[in-house]
Amino acid sequence: MLTISHRGQQMPPSPIRKLVPYAEAAKKRGTKVFHLNIGQPDIATPEMILDAVRNSDFKVLEYSHSAGNESYRKKLVQYYAKVGININSNQIIVTTGGSEAILFGFMACMDAGDEVIIPEPFYANYNGFAIEAGVVVTPICSSIETGFALPPMEDFEKVITPKTKAIVICNPNNPTGYLYSREEMEILKKIILKHNLFLFADEAYREFCYEGTHTSFMQLEGVNDHIVLIDTISKRYSACGGRIGALVTKNSSLLGAVMKFAQARLSPPSFAQILGEAAVDLPDNYFDITKAEYKKRRDTLVKRLNAIPGVFCPNPGGAFYAMAKLPIDDADIFCQWLLESFSYQGQTVMLAPATGFYGTPGLGKKEVRLAYVLNTTAINSAMDCLEKALETYRLKLGDGANITQKQNAY
Amino acid sequence: MLTISHRGQQMPPSPIRKLVPYAEAAKKRGTKVFHLNIGQPDIATPEMILDAVRNSDFKVLEYSHSAGNESYRKKLVQYYAKVGININSNQIIVTTGGSEAILFGFMACMDAGDEVIIPEPFYANYNGFAIEAGVVVTPICSSIETGFALPPMEDFEKVITPKTKAIVICNPNNPTGYLYSREEMEILKKIILKHNLFLFADEAYREFCYEGTHTSFMQLEGVNDHIVLIDTISKRYSACGGRIGALVTKNSSLLGAVMKFAQARLSPPSFAQILGEAAVDLPDNYFDITKAEYKKRRDTLVKRLNAIPGVFCPNPGGAFYAMAKLPIDDADIFCQWLLESFSYQGQTVMLAPATGFYGTPGLGKKEVRLAYVLNTTAINSAMDCLEKALETYRLKLGDGANITQKQNAY
Repeated sequence: MLTISHRGQQMPPSPIRKLVPYAEAAKKRGTKVFHLNIGQPDIATPEMILDAVRNSDFKVLEYSHSAGNESYRKKLVQYYAKVGININSNQIIVTTGGSEAILFGFMACMDAGDEVIIPEPFYANYNGFAIEAGVVVTPICSSIETGFALPPMEDFEKVITPKTKAIVICNPNNPTGYLYSREEMEILKKIILKHNLFLFADEAYREFCYEGTHTSFMQLEGVNDHIVLIDTISKRYSACGGRIGALVTKNSSLLGAVMKFAQARLSPPSFAQILGEAAVDLPDNYFDITKAEYKKRRDTLVKRLNAIPGVFCPNPGGAFYAMAKLPIDDADIFCQWLLESFSYQGQTVMLAPATGFYGTPGLGKKEVRLAYVLNTTAINSAMDCLEKALETYRLKLGDGANITQKQNAY
Repeated sequence: MLTISHRGQQMPPSPIRKLVPYAEAAKKRGTKVFHLNIGQPDIATPEMILDAVRNSDFKVLEYSHSAGNESYRKKLVQYYAKVGININSNQIIVTTGGSEAILFGFMACMDAGDEVIIPEPFYANYNGFAIEAGVVVTPICSSIETGFALPPMEDFEKVITPKTKAIVICNPNNPTGYLYSREEMEILKKIILKHNLFLFADEAYREFCYEGTHTSFMQLEGVNDHIVLIDTISKRYSACGGRIGALVTKNSSLLGAVMKFAQARLSPPSFAQILGEAAVDLPDNYFDITKAEYKKRRDTLVKRLNAIPGVFCPNPGGAFYAMAKLPIDDADIFCQWLLESFSYQGQTVMLAPATGFYGTPGLGKKEVRLAYVLNTTAINSAMDCLEKALETYRLKLGDGANITQKQNAY
């Protein structure tokens, strides 16, 4: 019998997309589904940058440079300077989305069997890229009770082995929305210097910080060789389908290795590089407007969530995600039930069960991730649904629903 | 010391691109360089398909379905039906170039340490993807003397071990241009059935066959579960920069595994899917025109090559590559010398040394690959340069240049 690889079998299905068939069935029944499950912003991609593609007039859609068009990389240098990151165009390798940057980074820094530490809950696809690279993810727990703050240094040191090669930090965080403080970044610096580790800094949501400003790991001093910046234009400009990201580092031997991976796949997509290059010239207030919109949504969402009996949602400092603890036993079952068996005024809501974001089995069973990628009217309607749903669910299950006492918000 | 991975160190640099710095230096000196080293066609991308992108009017550049837009996959079903391949839209996973299709295929079919047999010389980046997947490439030699025909069944069976999981066949072949016969395909069928192997059929150049018609491995009967079709629109429509390919198979468990890899990286590029979808509606004579142009170039190139004393070039049946044996000892040195130290009427030519396409060290040292991606005027000028260069090189090196006797053309 022909069999697929163990790796192919181990590969996890997307926890964000696994409920899609239930959502499709709900829609077929005529139920409107509010998608708070996936980080696909509804905010329009700026016309100016779409026009850059529409107005392009080349004759041959050629391969670009494997590291990305030089003109784009030079523009990116300007963009990074604006956000306080000083690099040159040879320290940037343009990738096919942030996804490819993570995969290249994992493959270039780690061999099969090596270990990478990631505070959980974490972006679920890190798991997939780790399996592709044969790398073992060691999760360490950050909890909803502390608002998902960085676990203490001891927790890192407890799990560091001679196989540990790197730490991944997503800042601000997907799925928690947590914005790491300068102090926490200094702790991470101490750890990577002491134990000689790489730090993958996933800063996809850099522009969306609502409490305080963003500091990049690239701005830390004395760790140039350690920091591997993972970046993408997907969320920044509502340009997810472009599939343009970047791996940025000052470590020249790492750049050399990543360049070989980049050459093997020839080049990143050409059209979206044109779009990305134009995006650097967007007016400076572009992010003010989008950020204000996301902040309004966050405030609406978090307020509505915490007003529901038994629900606790720490206030996320950035990105466009919130994690909430619900008064239920099993979010996977509840989220499926929302799509399969519930509707309120012909509507229901799709959430991402948090279990898929935890590496440790059993954690996050009562939690869900909500992406506030819909406008406040839709968010309010979605929260009406959720409120009603929790009430119905409790009545349906009786005392078994195990309503947790509302906790103090941190 | 922070070190990069062994995998990152083992990863080969692109043999096609490694001479680029010498070409850049030559251009800086004012020398015109004819690029026959890389498969970047000069043929214009059809305006109609570029216009499909230019006229797109969506508001948000969204992620597409992880398997590619359904509308595109449905169109592809029509395209494949036209070339005699009967599949449905769920048997297609749209990938980021053929590159990603190969990587996904390797990862889903093989684990680290598994072996894949590839007749050499072969597309150099297979090596890169094998290293990324931890897979061992077992090359078996096809030689310029037979025009790169399929090695006999015994040669395959000699190297098959319990770890052997697959064979890769590129048809028509890059770098040799060889078009496998129906009889050779039947031999491969026998091998994969007898030894229970996958066959990766890289058919990127399907439309470009100059002697006889193309048969897809997908058309063979009784091997549905074994065949993994690797495809791309890059060469077909001169759309290399789009980065759109596909993995096609009727093996449902393989499709399930590949889909998980596809979900991890979210989606293939959106813009070029629009382009690919429009391409299926190109007039039926589109390929007649491009094929006639490539055939003219091939005929010019092969005739000119074989007219040079000591040069032998078998006539390639397809794709847009030719391999030639030159009257020199070391093509790597010669190709560098062409860029560094030679010019004729202010011009020189860039070739790809064949050693990078062989898996066995020492093979192909006198061979080069030439991509006939320039018009016949440019090809003639490039051949003028090569002819003059070989003469100069021989004089320069005296008898040491070791001019091989002209061999009979097959």
